[in-house]
Amino acid sequence: MAELFKAITVAQAREMIGRNLNLQPPVKRVSITEALGKRVAGDITAEEDVPGFDRSTMDGFAVMARDTFGAMESLPAYLDVDGEIFMGKEASLAIVGGRTWRVPTGGMLPPGADAVVMVEHTEELDGRTIGVTRPVAPGENIVRRGEDVSTGSVVLARGHSIRPQDMGFLAAAGVHSLEVEEPLRVTIISTGDEVVPPERSPGPGQVRDVNSYTLYGMAGQCGAYPVIAGIIKDDFQTLKEAMEKALTGSDMVLLSGGSSVGTRDVSSRVIESLGRPGVLFHGISIKPGKPTIGAVVDGKPVFGLPGHPVSAMVVFALLVEPLLKTGRYPQNEREKRLEFPLPAKINRNVRSAAGREDFLRVELKMEQGVMVAEPVLGKSGLIGTMVRAEGLARIPIEKEGVEAGEYVLVRPF
Amino acid sequence: MAELFKAITVAQAREMIGRNLNLQPPVKRVSITEALGKRVAGDITAEEDVPGFDRSTMDGFAVMARDTFGAMESLPAYLDVDGEIFMGKEASLAIVGGRTWRVPTGGMLPPGADAVVMVEHTEELDGRTIGVTRPVAPGENIVRRGEDVSTGSVVLARGHSIRPQDMGFLAAAGVHSLEVEEPLRVTIISTGDEVVPPERSPGPGQVRDVNSYTLYGMAGQCGAYPVIAGIIKDDFQTLKEAMEKALTGSDMVLLSGGSSVGTRDVSSRVIESLGRPGVLFHGISIKPGKPTIGAVVDGKPVFGLPGHPVSAMVVFALLVEPLLKTGRYPQNEREKRLEFPLPAKINRNVRSAAGREDFLRVELKMEQGVMVAEPVLGKSGLIGTMVRAEGLARIPIEKEGVEAGEYVLVRPF
Repeated sequence: MAELFKAITVAQAREMIGRNLNLQPPVKRVSITEALGKRVAGDITAEEDVPGFDRSTMDGFAVMARDTFGAMESLPAYLDVDGEIFMGKEASLAIVGGRTWRVPTGGMLPPGADAVVMVEHTEELDGRTIGVTRPVAPGENIVRRGEDVSTGSVVLARGHSIRPQDMGFLAAAGVHSLEVEEPLRVTIISTGDEVVPPERSPGPGQVRDVNSYTLYGMAGQCGAYPVIAGIIKDDFQTLKEAMEKALTGSDMVLLSGGSSVGTRDVSSRVIESLGRPGVLFHGISIKPGKPTIGAVVDGKPVFGLPGHPVSAMVVFALLVEPLLKTGRYPQNEREKRLEFPLPAKINRNVRSAAGREDFLRVELKMEQGVMVAEPVLGKSGLIGTMVRAEGLARIPIEKEGVEAGEYVLVRPF
Repeated sequence: MAELFKAITVAQAREMIGRNLNLQPPVKRVSITEALGKRVAGDITAEEDVPGFDRSTMDGFAVMARDTFGAMESLPAYLDVDGEIFMGKEASLAIVGGRTWRVPTGGMLPPGADAVVMVEHTEELDGRTIGVTRPVAPGENIVRRGEDVSTGSVVLARGHSIRPQDMGFLAAAGVHSLEVEEPLRVTIISTGDEVVPPERSPGPGQVRDVNSYTLYGMAGQCGAYPVIAGIIKDDFQTLKEAMEKALTGSDMVLLSGGSSVGTRDVSSRVIESLGRPGVLFHGISIKPGKPTIGAVVDGKPVFGLPGHPVSAMVVFALLVEPLLKTGRYPQNEREKRLEFPLPAKINRNVRSAAGREDFLRVELKMEQGVMVAEPVLGKSGLIGTMVRAEGLARIPIEKEGVEAGEYVLVRPF
């Protein structure tokens, strides 16, 4: 079977998975403080104006702006002070032409006032009169009722991932609980007859499980709920049962194979047997990470990741992370550019092949005010190279390599 | 008192706080899966080599490299196959000159073998003999014992923040639990007589608390333990008691003041009264965010953040976030550059003042393959402007503004 599949590009892989995806995380009502990083389950509409009144943004005097027109140092506009508005208190008495109220930053404007003169631009004459030494325009130094949030407007739209400022915005609008999608549950399975759990001392020819922990960490960073299912024997029936169980209990399954052809064949046959539409591709034209299987089973993504730890992490970053963070793949140039935000000058020649995207582990350092990326050499089976690295640099698919001094784009980590 | 302080730069503010800081988070032993984002409490040393044996990185044949020297398609080197090494099993019989063992990717090399010939570079003659059609160098296609981790080496150093690859590295080295620093506990206090909690309907002149929630979210993103202490009355004694309680129970206190001069004065007098060395600065030359108080009390940082939500978030990003994430401020050009990783072309002129650092809320979009930053206009009291924004752009202190088409550095969010 596997031979029928041709290595495809990352863009094609994303397109094929995206087209078959049908993630349906449960919806749950949470308080604002539990909402960070979660996705809004339905449009949230404001039921009132924020602020609920015209508000001063300065310590000063509430005025009708036209009373200050023409005012200057040498010829102030004189206004009678009717009183003082206190923080958090109602200003109920309307302002009258030629008169003013003292108002603090954040204080309510009296009806009729349309601007605030900063205290710095006034002079006190006696307790009852001030001179305004600089004119204000209508709207100056105030926030209008509903300027932050207006009744009926959409505060946050369905699918939006909640950031700290969104939490503040919800609080401002009086939304103290909201429906969000539960984070995706990801089951992580390791295979490979040579693999033992970290608490076991490996015998001759055995190594400890690395991928379960790197993938657990990466899924956790995305805000998902990862579950380590453990090391499953490289046997068709055992692995199939484990995969079926994982599919029942989670939204996504990550299998990280042993790296030998034998192990990969079992993993691949199991994934192919799971259901519809099943395996979509078998091999991506990237380095490291080529031997990747992508499948969707009843709307849930299933990935057969490479056994080499570096390769598995690269494929996770490209194909798994966007789904866990946003439920979809980047859809425009802007989102794609933000995946590798940092430009850096590479400091040695690196060969690649046209038609293949390469990802380099790099250390980052500043030299003469310029960010420099220094490739970390070492095999993709060595997790230590990823520990030394401070970012992942991308050599685009159309390039046959980069020369020392060229800029590459880096995702720092 | 406040008048005695002069606005200082961000760099100076960091230096002053850093010099007086003495954070002492408790240390706790956790399993690998609980360690993400936490800081290693003491150097972790490897007690064994990883891998524990020389290992093949390819499916192929384990050889003594010298037996393949000179091999080519037209004149293969013939080797007798002594048998097959199985995954996870010991290869105990030493290799003998002129002979080979079949070995899978990840399989153990027999003693004496120093390279692996990929199966693609061999031809099977009969069940017992292969022809090698391309030479290998010693070390080719193998990982040496201890190449990933060597006994006695430092796996992770004290203070290192644990990333997913570090979790894998710990697993590889057989470290299944480790001592980490507990995340910092941050108490968040809001003041302002006009501020009500989000579940209350604001009366005339009142607004809901926004800062408690944005700051809670930002602290959560840093991996800290935030606690919302609520809205404390603008009264010296009440606020002082609340701050003292907060200092006892946490590693850092964030006070976000009302924005009026009156409220700020109370906050500032309370912070000044808390202890040694106390208030270090009062005002930073940034916009927004100028009216910020920085203090350290018995080694714990205390910040009086501006009342305007945008200002409070900017100051958090500059002065609070680095401490919560790493326990210290960026210490070199590289770390500083990484705070604002993304270059983008600004699409309108923005004025600033030399001697002041400006931070612009920006929307991000791609135009002709270039990332463009479009300033979001609006007062720093409007949290909605932060919700519309997709990043924060920095105008350096030495510039008097930027012109449309100039590049700025952006921190996307």
